[in-house]
This record gives sequence, structure tokens and C-alpha cells, in this order.
Amino acid sequence: MENFLIGVDLGGTNLKTGLVNMDGKILEKIVVDTGEGKDIVLKQIVKAIENITSKAGKDKSEIAGIGIGSPGLVDSEKGIIRGLTNIKGFENVHMKEYVESALDIPTFIDNDVNIMAYGELKCGAGKDAMNIVCLTLGTGVGGGIIIDGKIYRGSSLSAGEIGHIPVNVDGPKCICGGRACLESYIGRDRIIKRTIEKLTQRKESIIPKLVAGDLKKITPKIIYEAAAVGDTLAIEIWNETAQYLATALAGIINVLNPELIVIGGGIANTGKYLFDPLRDMIKERVFPFLAEKTRIVRAQLGEEAGIIGSAMLAKV
Amino acid sequence: MENFLIGVDLGGTNLKTGLVNMDGKILEKIVVDTGEGKDIVLKQIVKAIENITSKAGKDKSEIAGIGIGSPGLVDSEKGIIRGLTNIKGFENVHMKEYVESALDIPTFIDNDVNIMAYGELKCGAGKDAMNIVCLTLGTGVGGGIIIDGKIYRGSSLSAGEIGHIPVNVDGPKCICGGRACLESYIGRDRIIKRTIEKLTQRKESIIPKLVAGDLKKITPKIIYEAAAVGDTLAIEIWNETAQYLATALAGIINVLNPELIVIGGGIANTGKYLFDPLRDMIKERVFPFLAEKTRIVRAQLGEEAGIIGSAMLAKV
Repeated sequence: MENFLIGVDLGGTNLKTGLVNMDGKILEKIVVDTGEGKDIVLKQIVKAIENITSKAGKDKSEIAGIGIGSPGLVDSEKGIIRGLTNIKGFENVHMKEYVESALDIPTFIDNDVNIMAYGELKCGAGKDAMNIVCLTLGTGVGGGIIIDGKIYRGSSLSAGEIGHIPVNVDGPKCICGGRACLESYIGRDRIIKRTIEKLTQRKESIIPKLVAGDLKKITPKIIYEAAAVGDTLAIEIWNETAQYLATALAGIINVLNPELIVIGGGIANTGKYLFDPLRDMIKERVFPFLAEKTRIVRAQLGEEAGIIGSAMLAKV
Repeated sequence: MENFLIGVDLGGTNLKTGLVNMDGKILEKIVVDTGEGKDIVLKQIVKAIENITSKAGKDKSEIAGIGIGSPGLVDSEKGIIRGLTNIKGFENVHMKEYVESALDIPTFIDNDVNIMAYGELKCGAGKDAMNIVCLTLGTGVGGGIIIDGKIYRGSSLSAGEIGHIPVNVDGPKCICGGRACLESYIGRDRIIKRTIEKLTQRKESIIPKLVAGDLKKITPKIIYEAAAVGDTLAIEIWNETAQYLATALAGIINVLNPELIVIGGGIANTGKYLFDPLRDMIKERVFPFLAEKTRIVRAQLGEEAGIIGSAMLAKV
């Protein structure tokens, strides 16, 4: 009898649950509102798992494992979500214990960026790789590290904070308490801020037109669209973004020597406007033989990374 | 019957060989000139191992393993020293094969900074730790990484190049081909260069007196001595050095979340003038809970790290 896995992607807004086969293919998927409050969210998760199992015409006995990915601080060893800023009252939640006692199926949890990295390793851009560094570029800059084919969590389960690599000795204060962190230059809002700053100094850009004069409406997507039609100022913004990123990743490559850097998240949709200068700049900054050996690629799983990665975590 | 290990520290000038017990204690040690040329060096190594065994009154059958540490690029898996700039003609040397066929004792080789890190893990500052980052501050800035109690070598066996973490988006060209690398600010010569630059702008320092007016004679030791008697300019140099180092290490801590950073090498002899500001600056730049959990300590094995670490590598 074939077995299946369930992957749960617990977000602040949506709770995505997928029934996945052993190769990481999503066979059924349901998305519901996450809801508020610890008890409601926990019940939603169990219900979603039951619903998707019956929707797919499977029996509970066919589910080999459940994986759950969540943002915030996750103690994957003990199965506890320590904190989840987007959901009220979600602190020190014994997720693994709760789900296992409700469903009697082995359950595993981890941080969402670790999950994404693991998903890319098993079913995405990182197949056949052993040492991978994954980044998500969005509101913040997240990171997940795979070493020897396993998620590397560090001594206090908080490894992978690539967004908080300083890229300058001095620089802007960061929300982490540090200074000049990568995220403080290329987090979503900082990219927009840099764009607005440039626009106040220079006028020759189509960006103001794209937002009908309301600079508050600038998004990374708008800056991407401007770059796509050759807007010099927009291209400069992506070049600068690539430069900050290249500085941090050069350090990562020289120190961790991964074979692969996988970049996902909304900002990665900028495609060649970010990736082309990024690859060139990294080549200039790392040891020449590492420049050849380290591939810089886009994440492949996109929106489904959370479900697939969680499910793969449960494949033991 | 008790078994013993032999550790060989192959340097450009000296070849140090030690007979070590299973706890990492050096029982006998001999130091000879390394010599020149591949054949001579290889014969020297075998002879030194034979000599130390008989000098310690042991039989070859009591030697459980031999470890050899060498600077340069080492393929520890295949047992080949790929390149060793300090010894002429030392390229692609099948060290493991040579020593094993000469002595019939299991032999292991690795890069000297990996060896130092492993020595500190097993017998020095890192006992009982699982994830450690080691640095050597000297002519260059070297690094070794221990993950899950094992040397982490990376996908192309070149991980740990902590000296080549960029600490600024822009900055001085580095010998590695990159830019603004840590080593390009705090390598031995760069520390001296920064000191001379400061001295040309300001006069109120005792450093010129300590070198009898000949600024070419400035060494890190001189700058340390000046700091030790309260010389403001010298203290500034160490504060700046700490700042570059803190920038790189903040990234390392946020990304790798080791429990321990071990710092050795000649420059580390500066002691509190480097370590005090370094610890303070790192606290300001990493996640607050990591600031509490990450210890920054001096290496304990000093000059003997090479012998002890190599020997421990052979303890399998």
C-alpha cells in the first residue's frame, strides 16, 4: 500500500494544507483562513488534516507523517512553536504533542524558511545537493541552511538569519538591534525607501507615472516593471540591491562553501534584473574557483514550498 | 595495552611532531627544519614519526593513528595536499598514501586551521561544544568550523575562509580577488599600515619611541605594548580591529549560531585590548538572546594546537 504525507503551511493569514505523495507531488490542497487564538488555530489544523485526507479518498492509516511549517521561533526538537508574531496568543504552543495526540500520526515542525530550504533540497532546485543556503527575499530576508543533506539549526535553534549579516561596518539601525544588516538595505520597505530617495533627487524615471504620482504606492513589482522597460533609476535600484546581497553572499560562500544558493520570495520575481548583476558581483568577490563551483539559482517550488517542504520533513 | 597517536604539524619552516596520548597530552615532541622539495619533506615526516616513536620507547604497533596538519589547500577525503605555497614543489602530494605505505599506520590529513579547530574542540576551549567557529589572527585571518562535533569542510573542501568575509560593501582590494574582506583590514600588515597612517596624522603616541623612530619596525606586539601603557592611538587601533572583527563575527553568529567562537593566532595575544571591545561590539550587533548564549574565548592550545589537533584527527 502506498503511503502519503501531509504538509501544513501555517501563515498569519492563510493555513494551507496539502496531501503529498512520497515524491513531493501535491495531490490535494486546501486553503482556509488561519483564524485567531491558539485554540482555534490548533483545531483548524487538525480539521484541515482530517478534511484533506477524506477529500483525497484516503484513510488516516495511509498517512505516514505530518509536517508543519510556521514562521517565528520554532523548537523543532521539542515540537514547540515558541513565538509567532502574526497570530495573537500563539506562544509556547506544543504543536507536535497536540497534533499527535489528536490524530496519532507522527508529526514534525520547523521554521518556515528551514522548511522551504528542505523542500528545495528534496524536490526543487537543490536535488542531489548536500550543502545549500536558501534565502527568501520579501518583507524581511530569511534564510535556511542545509548541511550534509539535513537542516542545520545551530546551537540555540536559530541559525540561518542571513538577513542579519552586517554588510557594512557602520550603517542603518536594524530591527534586530544590530546595525547595517542586509535586511536593513534590501528588506521590501528599504528597497522602496531607496527608490523614493532617488526619485526625490532625480526626475527621469517612469516610476511616478506607474503609480499615478503617489509614491506611497511604489512596490517591488512596480520597480521591476519599470526596470523591464529600461528605466535607468529602477535598474540602478536592482543593481544596488544585488550589491548588498552579493556582499553578504560572498561571505556565506567563502565561509560555508555550499554548492548552491537558492533564492526565493516575492522580490526574487525580479528575475534577471536582480540575478544577472548578483551573479556577476559574487564572481568578483569570492575565491575564483568557488565562483565557478557555486550555483546561484531561483527557488523552484514558489508558493508550494511550505506544503512540500513540510511534507518532506515528515518523510522519515 | 594503551595506544598512542602521532600528530604532525607541517609548517613552511618547522616540522613539529608529537607523540600524544588518547587524552591529547603531548608525551614527546621533536621539531626539525621542514626542508625543501617534496621528496625530502616526505622522508623527513616518516623519519620524524619513527624517531619520536623510538624516543618515547614505544613500538610502532602501539601507534593507533597518525594525523598531519598542513597549511594550504588539503583534500582531506583523498589525503592529498593540493598546494602548499611555503614549500617548493609541494603540489598534489599524496601524503596519506605515502605515509601509510611507509609505516602501515592509518593516516589522516587536514588543513591547519581545521586541525586547530578540531584540537580546541577535543582538548581545548571547545570541550563539550558541538558547533564552534575558530579563527586565527596572524599574517592572514584563517578559520575552521566545527558542526555537530565534526570538521565542516564544505562542498569543495574550502569552507571556513572567515578572513574573506566582506565587512563593507566597498573597500580595499583583497589578495583573494575580492574586496573589503576582513583580512584586508585586520591581517597583520594591514593593522600595521593603519597604525602608520594614524601616526602620520597625529604625533601623540609612544609607538615611534618604542621603535626608535623607525616605523618599519612596528609590529602588533609593539602596538599591544603601547596599548598596555595607555597609549590612546594604540588603543584606537585595537578598537578599530575589534570593530571589523565584530562586524564579520556578528554575521557568523546570526547565520551559524555556534555556541562558541575561539580566537587564536599571534594577534590574539593582544588579550583584553582586543577581546573586551570585541565582546561589547558583538553584543550590540547580534540578536540579544544570541549575545547571551555565544561565548567568545581565546584559543587554549596555542603553539601545540597543530600537534594535538592532528593527533586527535587520527583518533577514530
